[in-house]
Amino acid sequence: MRARNLAVVLATIHRSGPHTRAALAERTGLTKTTVSSLVADLLEAGVVAEGGAVRGGERGRPGVAVGLSGHRVAALGLEINIDYLAACVVDLTRTVRLRRVRPADNRNSDPAAILEGLRALVKEITAEAEEAGLRVIGAALAVPGTVEGGVLRSAPHLGWRDVRVAGLMDLPGELGHFEMDNEANLAALGELWFGAREPDFLYVSGEIGIGAGLVVRGSLFRGTFGLAGELGHVVVVPDGPACRCGGRGCLEVYAGQDALLGELASVGDLVARLESGDREAEQACERAGHALGVALTSAVHLLDPGRIVLGGIFAPLFRWLEGPVSEGLGARLGQMRGRPPALVVSGTGGEAAVLGAAGLIIQQILAEPAQLLGL
Amino acid sequence: MRARNLAVVLATIHRSGPHTRAALAERTGLTKTTVSSLVADLLEAGVVAEGGAVRGGERGRPGVAVGLSGHRVAALGLEINIDYLAACVVDLTRTVRLRRVRPADNRNSDPAAILEGLRALVKEITAEAEEAGLRVIGAALAVPGTVEGGVLRSAPHLGWRDVRVAGLMDLPGELGHFEMDNEANLAALGELWFGAREPDFLYVSGEIGIGAGLVVRGSLFRGTFGLAGELGHVVVVPDGPACRCGGRGCLEVYAGQDALLGELASVGDLVARLESGDREAEQACERAGHALGVALTSAVHLLDPGRIVLGGIFAPLFRWLEGPVSEGLGARLGQMRGRPPALVVSGTGGEAAVLGAAGLIIQQILAEPAQLLGL
Repeated sequence: MRARNLAVVLATIHRSGPHTRAALAERTGLTKTTVSSLVADLLEAGVVAEGGAVRGGERGRPGVAVGLSGHRVAALGLEINIDYLAACVVDLTRTVRLRRVRPADNRNSDPAAILEGLRALVKEITAEAEEAGLRVIGAALAVPGTVEGGVLRSAPHLGWRDVRVAGLMDLPGELGHFEMDNEANLAALGELWFGAREPDFLYVSGEIGIGAGLVVRGSLFRGTFGLAGELGHVVVVPDGPACRCGGRGCLEVYAGQDALLGELASVGDLVARLESGDREAEQACERAGHALGVALTSAVHLLDPGRIVLGGIFAPLFRWLEGPVSEGLGARLGQMRGRPPALVVSGTGGEAAVLGAAGLIIQQILAEPAQLLGL
Repeated sequence: MRARNLAVVLATIHRSGPHTRAALAERTGLTKTTVSSLVADLLEAGVVAEGGAVRGGERGRPGVAVGLSGHRVAALGLEINIDYLAACVVDLTRTVRLRRVRPADNRNSDPAAILEGLRALVKEITAEAEEAGLRVIGAALAVPGTVEGGVLRSAPHLGWRDVRVAGLMDLPGELGHFEMDNEANLAALGELWFGAREPDFLYVSGEIGIGAGLVVRGSLFRGTFGLAGELGHVVVVPDGPACRCGGRGCLEVYAGQDALLGELASVGDLVARLESGDREAEQACERAGHALGVALTSAVHLLDPGRIVLGGIFAPLFRWLEGPVSEGLGARLGQMRGRPPALVVSGTGGEAAVLGAAGLIIQQILAEPAQLLGL
């Protein structure tokens, strides 16, 4: 009961800003004595701080307002991608406090070796966070693969299968609270909390693989087993080229990073070619855009997203993809819907997944402060 | 507060069966006096009745148990389909009390005329329900089209567009509580409450059009605007034949009723041909099954359903569709998932949508008894 009341008080402060204790009692229906005792615990844990502006329109004499504190409690976001490891520390107010990216070649790699490198990165960034007075109380990891029941089932580009990451990571102390999810899911949450902050969208994550995360009224749709949003394997051409998933003609075959880059070394190279009007590069984007238009038509019919946000490598290529994708959606969706969902570019750069990972832990702390902070 | 407590008491009885008043007080945390007063109101409204078996394991002397009553409160399910109107009355215990189906030719019809016919059907079945002592307190209507904000946006096979059905229906008195939804959505709920009662599945509704309804942990996924699950317009062949939706190569073109029947008059005729080993009929099923396999692959990747339930006209054709659909799913999904979701046949016959419609109102009564029953 006390745990639930702590959550109710914290949710009120989180959603509606700083409150006096009297105002909190009024809004939550708890007694002033109970509220004072709960607030004392939250202050002690550094979750809230005194001194925020008093909300107007309250009865009685003005009191000291209590607001969310960004000074003490923080969460760690982590990401393993094909060519880098990333980490960030985000405080309770969802301000990014620290960020690290370490280039790496993780293709067909040994999980233990990569996780060793990630652990070193964790050690470094949490030490720095502690120096800044932050208490890092949980970590979430974004991976380019499917996650089921805490196990990384399949990350084909890493060459990993059925890896029990949490056990291998063996994180110390308070980082024992550990979550892992697909990078597209966490990138969608990153877009929600750190990007445009719209409540309804399908985030499309262009990487070596292509994933998607659907957010409806501010909540991520995960499907039955947490495997929803595998946009990269939506069938574009049923008898098309074989895909590494075992299927044929999947979106990834036409619009994944390898298909887009061809012989080029990086997305930067592709953008340079496109800017110089290179016809071959333009055709690669047209092909990818056309395939994206087909797969997104199926996705709109099945998922009914509010808007479509192109992220990952599709963000720097947006100028060249927008036309063919919009055209495909417009031609195919026209009569079923007044107009297709708006197509926009992600505002979170390449950081969506690692930020979303940290944001997920922040969300959990705010929802269950007693459990996660040991109150 | 009283409204909420009524709902809590009713939910407890609904989920866990008959309870004594003392047991209800214990389980809900309400005082015995409050529970007695709430139960009196529910008894008076005919929502619950005394005399159910006493739950074991309770302290004190045995009391009279109070259970859900099927004798008084009921809901009306309605359906407009291409070739019939249907109605059913379902009581609070989700027992079907009355059912009516009236053949009709509703293709390219005048909404006012069809709704006039539906109103006559409503009058007839509610009169009969009243004679049986039932109080019908709300109605839901299943339509073969997209519904947004209470408006039937587009039902292409009926030839209807932007029809404000509730206004045209002008239902009397207590039937003023009126809901309308897509037939595939309501059929999925029908499968949940009256069919296999599994909590996780994608219901595929084969009719003139093809729709789908995803149920995850017992809840229907509706998407952002209530338009999710339009499986019939998932792209199977990007440059395939034109579909009436404006797109090309949609699933409906290959597996909708018109594609399956060809020159035949009814699904019964098709089944007869299939049973006699007619090669042309078999090929139509193979083509449809192959297209379903492709579209369902995309649907599984995006929606992550627990199982796939084939309903509507796909139910009597299941014997012939199962092979090609399973083969397609197996070949395409194999490496991404251990095994594809199970493919099963619906257990609700052709009635899933109209039953789901009535069930939806029952669900609303159980969730908000005070509002819907005027307590």
